[in-house]
Amino acid sequence: MHDRQRRLVLLTQYLVSHPGEQAGLADLARRLGVAKSTLSEDLLLVRQVLEEAGQGQVATQLGAQGGVTFRPEPDRERIGRAVAEWITRLNSPDRLTPEGFLYMTDLLFTPRLVDPMGELLAARFQDREVGLVATVETKGIPLALATARALGRPALLLRRDNRLSEGSSLSLNYFSGSSHRIQSMSLARRSPVRGQRVLFVDDFLKAGGTARAAADLLGEFDARVVGVGVLVATPDPARKLIPEYWACLEWREGAEEPPPWVRETPWVRSWLEAGSGTEA
Amino acid sequence: MHDRQRRLVLLTQYLVSHPGEQAGLADLARRLGVAKSTLSEDLLLVRQVLEEAGQGQVATQLGAQGGVTFRPEPDRERIGRAVAEWITRLNSPDRLTPEGFLYMTDLLFTPRLVDPMGELLAARFQDREVGLVATVETKGIPLALATARALGRPALLLRRDNRLSEGSSLSLNYFSGSSHRIQSMSLARRSPVRGQRVLFVDDFLKAGGTARAAADLLGEFDARVVGVGVLVATPDPARKLIPEYWACLEWREGAEEPPPWVRETPWVRSWLEAGSGTEA
Repeated sequence: MHDRQRRLVLLTQYLVSHPGEQAGLADLARRLGVAKSTLSEDLLLVRQVLEEAGQGQVATQLGAQGGVTFRPEPDRERIGRAVAEWITRLNSPDRLTPEGFLYMTDLLFTPRLVDPMGELLAARFQDREVGLVATVETKGIPLALATARALGRPALLLRRDNRLSEGSSLSLNYFSGSSHRIQSMSLARRSPVRGQRVLFVDDFLKAGGTARAAADLLGEFDARVVGVGVLVATPDPARKLIPEYWACLEWREGAEEPPPWVRETPWVRSWLEAGSGTEA
Repeated sequence: MHDRQRRLVLLTQYLVSHPGEQAGLADLARRLGVAKSTLSEDLLLVRQVLEEAGQGQVATQLGAQGGVTFRPEPDRERIGRAVAEWITRLNSPDRLTPEGFLYMTDLLFTPRLVDPMGELLAARFQDREVGLVATVETKGIPLALATARALGRPALLLRRDNRLSEGSSLSLNYFSGSSHRIQSMSLARRSPVRGQRVLFVDDFLKAGGTARAAADLLGEFDARVVGVGVLVATPDPARKLIPEYWACLEWREGAEEPPPWVRETPWVRSWLEAGSGTEA
């Protein structure tokens, strides 16, 4: 086998398995056992191939702190398969509990299904300079983590109760339309959130009370919610408590609805069909 | 540029960005625009390079349902950097709350830090034929999801309360030594867990009451806990309520301890230094 072919395979493998991370050029050259000039030529080729094929951007940073970073394009095919599987699974009649809830906890905790939805939300909000992805416990956590991972940012957990284990915290009560009761939400004072631009992510949105309460609580920390993304939203009530949100799926709830009661939202359909996720 | 170089880059990129997933040979050939015989030659080369470099296994499945699957080796270097960062961050005096807890929620919710620890636990338990990775809400969730992702399995959420939204469920009360109180744990009857081999994962283990309660609750569903993995354990009490567990880090708690009070456990040190994670 040619040395160059070997290097191209290893270089591609390294970049693709470290998405969003800067690799130092000197370090990469050492790994591959080549001079930096050879590495530069290889990098040029890998970049050209990946960018022409629409697989992502290979960005080179020059100088002493120089390096190279691969930013993959979201994998539309895989995201499309996940959206289709969510729709099939959620339209199964045994997903409805006797109380009229849509059971989806098992699916939310399956990385194969939830990670692509996080990539979808990350693509939607990539232009909003998100610093943190917040959610409130519990079921929205996997989606928030997947979105945070795809954006290369930390997630932030809003708690339901004060926790002794987190030191002093700030709390807020609000009415949740989804659970038909007063809920509470709290955040430790030591949370590293001051001044951040926050994307709020949850599994489910009905009236938007939880999202609004999160925005209020984060406001107390001088943080600002710059977007709201959820997996499933209901069309009712039409007027939500927040100015804007983006849902991946829409659920027409109500016992009189025949399946399919879950479908993808219009922006998801056009994002999957067309191309750019920003003009939806 | 040579066509073959282009194909090698794209083939490597596809395999590495779909870890653990089988790619159909016909589908891959179509993507790369080559005949299946050409693809086979390229695959042989990619396989040889990646396997010789110790980056993972490229397994080919023959026949009509045939395909190829890349199973990456855990990235010891990245895991080692993450372990070192956990130790540095947790040994900072401002991590101790006035009540003597170790605050780590913000770090647990940072994918860059928690994902490598999930890979570390997955490497430790990869031989136990794990079907599900269970945790109890809330702070162990990111580690459980990361471990589940690395094992290619779903995670399973044990709730603190019964949830109306999940239909009927089974509950259990137990004494938690970490929080000094009676806790409760419940699981929806519709959870797809019957007969499964379960890895229990949590952020913190002291006496092991939570892990034992999880094993009891899962036992009611005919599921069996085949391993317990946690991020941080305390040496006291020396006698735990469970027969075996594997912690990544050890925390000598107590106000009289000077830092560093957190360090890696012996099996992690030898796994990082040596090689195989199974003979620790």
